[in-house]
Amino acid sequence: MASEVETFLGIDVGGGSIKASLIDRNGKLYQEEVEPINRLATNQEFLNHLKSLVNKFPDTVKKIGVGTPGPIDFDSGIIIHSSNLSNLSNFPIVAEISRITNKQVMFNNDANCAALGEYHFGNSKGINNLIVIALGTGLGCGWIYQGSIYNGFRGNGMEAGHTTIVKDGAVCGCGNKGCAESYFSTRGLVNRYKEQTGKSISNAKEFFKLIEENDIEAKRILSYAVEVLAELVRNLIHTVNPEKIVFVGGLTRSYSIYEVELKRKLKEIVFPVLWDNLIMEKGIEIAGAYGAASLCF
Amino acid sequence: MASEVETFLGIDVGGGSIKASLIDRNGKLYQEEVEPINRLATNQEFLNHLKSLVNKFPDTVKKIGVGTPGPIDFDSGIIIHSSNLSNLSNFPIVAEISRITNKQVMFNNDANCAALGEYHFGNSKGINNLIVIALGTGLGCGWIYQGSIYNGFRGNGMEAGHTTIVKDGAVCGCGNKGCAESYFSTRGLVNRYKEQTGKSISNAKEFFKLIEENDIEAKRILSYAVEVLAELVRNLIHTVNPEKIVFVGGLTRSYSIYEVELKRKLKEIVFPVLWDNLIMEKGIEIAGAYGAASLCF
Repeated sequence: MASEVETFLGIDVGGGSIKASLIDRNGKLYQEEVEPINRLATNQEFLNHLKSLVNKFPDTVKKIGVGTPGPIDFDSGIIIHSSNLSNLSNFPIVAEISRITNKQVMFNNDANCAALGEYHFGNSKGINNLIVIALGTGLGCGWIYQGSIYNGFRGNGMEAGHTTIVKDGAVCGCGNKGCAESYFSTRGLVNRYKEQTGKSISNAKEFFKLIEENDIEAKRILSYAVEVLAELVRNLIHTVNPEKIVFVGGLTRSYSIYEVELKRKLKEIVFPVLWDNLIMEKGIEIAGAYGAASLCF
Repeated sequence: MASEVETFLGIDVGGGSIKASLIDRNGKLYQEEVEPINRLATNQEFLNHLKSLVNKFPDTVKKIGVGTPGPIDFDSGIIIHSSNLSNLSNFPIVAEISRITNKQVMFNNDANCAALGEYHFGNSKGINNLIVIALGTGLGCGWIYQGSIYNGFRGNGMEAGHTTIVKDGAVCGCGNKGCAESYFSTRGLVNRYKEQTGKSISNAKEFFKLIEENDIEAKRILSYAVEVLAELVRNLIHTVNPEKIVFVGGLTRSYSIYEVELKRKLKEIVFPVLWDNLIMEKGIEIAGAYGAASLCF
């Protein structure tokens, strides 16, 4: 690696592993490492994994960016808790990585990192007002406004998955009722299917297999979930009026199944001047570690 | 008036009149005029009223700010239509006032002007991230972010009254279903009361008189509307995470009737870290013309 090129280390904390990529501003990859972690890892065990991973990279790294699932405390650089790493509690990830590496560490939640990654390395470079909606286990969201992640007053950014679309509707993982996430997310689809049929399915792949098999209940649940997603998109458009909305995450693998119906509904419910000028598309799935690295740019 | 002080003319277009105030940056009032207008005024008649009003002010005015009901075309300075001035159509208000006065004219919708007025002359000076919710005939909203009105990509700002809270709920004036405005606004309360009881009431004063008289249906409708308002506030907090929310508009005259219930519900449904840090209060009702003038600052 030429010593003149500035490189940035992106670290993406997931449920089963921590991934790290060393890239430059253009997204050129110099080194990539994966550290498997136990879902029951304690703070100390998690720290050992982090150390082992980070020490594989050269000391020439300019800065380090880290993305983790929430809830996080953005100001103090702490993972408060993670539903995928159940024994982790108030882990000061920024302080620990700084201590290990002596580098400046940038930090944000994984949805915000995904959004920033789409902005820098996807098809949305230069879009001044971009919302990225992550349709995965949950429903995450990140807003890139004027080239940076919009963090809001307390640094929680856009938690659009937990906005109410169906007052007094289905119970969400957050404890409230009728959140967008309780319908259009893997968790939402699986829970609604269980509720309606009594049958358990374990993931989105199984759910969309049922759709392919013309399962009446699955189709009804998806159709309602698409309407909820449309209402969420309407609310985001009528609230912050973005230039572009991009969908990422596991559920976009089936985007072609619901794209037409989603757009039909949106055309019906969004103010025409706003809908006609909006670009909406499926993203190109930038790796989380790239998004995390772009926190440093 | 000392000639050194810069003065700004604020023009507030309402349903029954156009009000204009000449003020300085500190909100000191130098002159105030009101021009009654006919609700059926045509573009030409409206223009004549505007001329008559504007010509009453001295030529030393630095700039002019205008606030009008929407929908407006922000970029081209046009009132597309106004539900209170039914014969007005695509009126180029910025170009006309510029032509009459030879001054620079700033323009925005009335809800945004109200928000900016609260920011400059209310109790929210210096709040970096302020949402003002106008509870009147409709439900308007303005977001002051880093000292300026947030206009979004197409200049429509925050149209939060037309975000969906009750999927497939009551029909709204905008033609969609379940918007916040179709519950918590004068129009919403009056229409829901008519729907439930078959009885017509003509304004918010009558509605809140029924509340005082312990009318069961009115109380049930208000209670549901307060829940909808709480869900709207939740959605705004989880979407843009403001530092402060201020309520203005006619329905805040009865704020003490629903304040406790609104806050109780919000404490239940908003993420604690966000609710605990939010300031929420009733505004001090800055005149629309002051808000319009502050577009020039």
